[in-house]
Amino acid sequence: MTGWLVVAGLGPGADDLVTPQVTEALAQATDIVGYIPYVARVAPRAGLTLHPSDNRVELDRALHALDMAAAGRRVVVVSSGDPGVFAMASAIFEAMEGRADFLSLDIRILPGITAMLAAAARAGAPLGHDFCAINLSDNLKPFATVERRVALAAQGDFAMAFYNPRSASRPHQFARVLEVLRAECEPDRLITFARAVSTPEEALLTVTLAEALPEMADMRTVVIVGNSQTRRLGRYVYTPRSAL
Amino acid sequence: MTGWLVVAGLGPGADDLVTPQVTEALAQATDIVGYIPYVARVAPRAGLTLHPSDNRVELDRALHALDMAAAGRRVVVVSSGDPGVFAMASAIFEAMEGRADFLSLDIRILPGITAMLAAAARAGAPLGHDFCAINLSDNLKPFATVERRVALAAQGDFAMAFYNPRSASRPHQFARVLEVLRAECEPDRLITFARAVSTPEEALLTVTLAEALPEMADMRTVVIVGNSQTRRLGRYVYTPRSAL
Repeated sequence: MTGWLVVAGLGPGADDLVTPQVTEALAQATDIVGYIPYVARVAPRAGLTLHPSDNRVELDRALHALDMAAAGRRVVVVSSGDPGVFAMASAIFEAMEGRADFLSLDIRILPGITAMLAAAARAGAPLGHDFCAINLSDNLKPFATVERRVALAAQGDFAMAFYNPRSASRPHQFARVLEVLRAECEPDRLITFARAVSTPEEALLTVTLAEALPEMADMRTVVIVGNSQTRRLGRYVYTPRSAL
Repeated sequence: MTGWLVVAGLGPGADDLVTPQVTEALAQATDIVGYIPYVARVAPRAGLTLHPSDNRVELDRALHALDMAAAGRRVVVVSSGDPGVFAMASAIFEAMEGRADFLSLDIRILPGITAMLAAAARAGAPLGHDFCAINLSDNLKPFATVERRVALAAQGDFAMAFYNPRSASRPHQFARVLEVLRAECEPDRLITFARAVSTPEEALLTVTLAEALPEMADMRTVVIVGNSQTRRLGRYVYTPRSAL
């Protein structure tokens, strides 16, 4: 058996947002590797071994997947959303550094519907013009870098999508990001808090920057900040295609 | 018959990158509206009317689609990629301004695999850290805004994805964007030119900023600029999850 490694995006949650390409890879797999709640989205079947693992062990998980593929298994590493956006694809390549033996493996990254685009679609079209995607977690970068990027994105009048805005272990940082936005943007700038889009727990809330509270976000929320032209229209929020 | 309007993303080109949600909407539709090459991706069938239209008539197309939905038709407006990323979703909402009668319509935006994420997946994981998406076309904004945003994104050490980098009618602007990048970034910054990903015409090329030429891009190309940490690893290009 010739092994391979696929890093697949399962999309934001709903089954009908999983691409047929990913569904086919899952059907061919012998092993599924990933964070516990993502592996739980793959239906068990004969001949398929599930390898759920805890959060924050991305490099261990990547090496395990690479080792199994090298041993001839057909391995799918599952990510929520898109594997290339704050997810497992980069971790796989980091794990391959200094391991030339892994470079001959058949490795494919399969894209998925990333959370910000699912959230934007549900809200209307708040990312309809130039935008930035920023991971607010400081697990792997200084928080000063986060603040600097948010400020520059605001100065460029980019719309923004924030991943991992807030967790129990760092509750104050999103409050600080709101302060940075308030220093750069007008108080009626629109912000959408989109939680668990396409799942039964889905909840959307759009408020102005003046009204925004840190508690409106948690780790299952994507936060979308409009640009200066972003507007409400009925129940929708959208960013026009034109800019000044 | 109760009409509705769906704005659907067909993904970058391959059938197996179309979500089941979009496939189902196409199966329920009575009318398909969109730019000629995107409508051509929908298989004709009895009971389905195709309404292909030329480029640069987005608002006319949007009004036509809204009028048909108001008249009870089941209308899908098709975009390539994701409809909320430099595509038809914002045009639909713009066309609804001042038309309160349209606000009661059943309107849904269905996300798709946008070109930059399909391209990133094929290259490896060049958007694996904070990134910006910038439309380089100046059809709807001053080119000075494009230059300013590219410079700010580089100063923030964002990775970048450029949509619509170059067309026959504005061949010199991408050359100017490369100059902006050269003023802000080191010469060995990695740039991936990803053309028509997931189609038979797919072509990927990764070069350094010093080697990049304007002619490497056309309107079917997404250009991905790495951040300062973006690396080659064998045939892959990826951006580590950590930053300085």
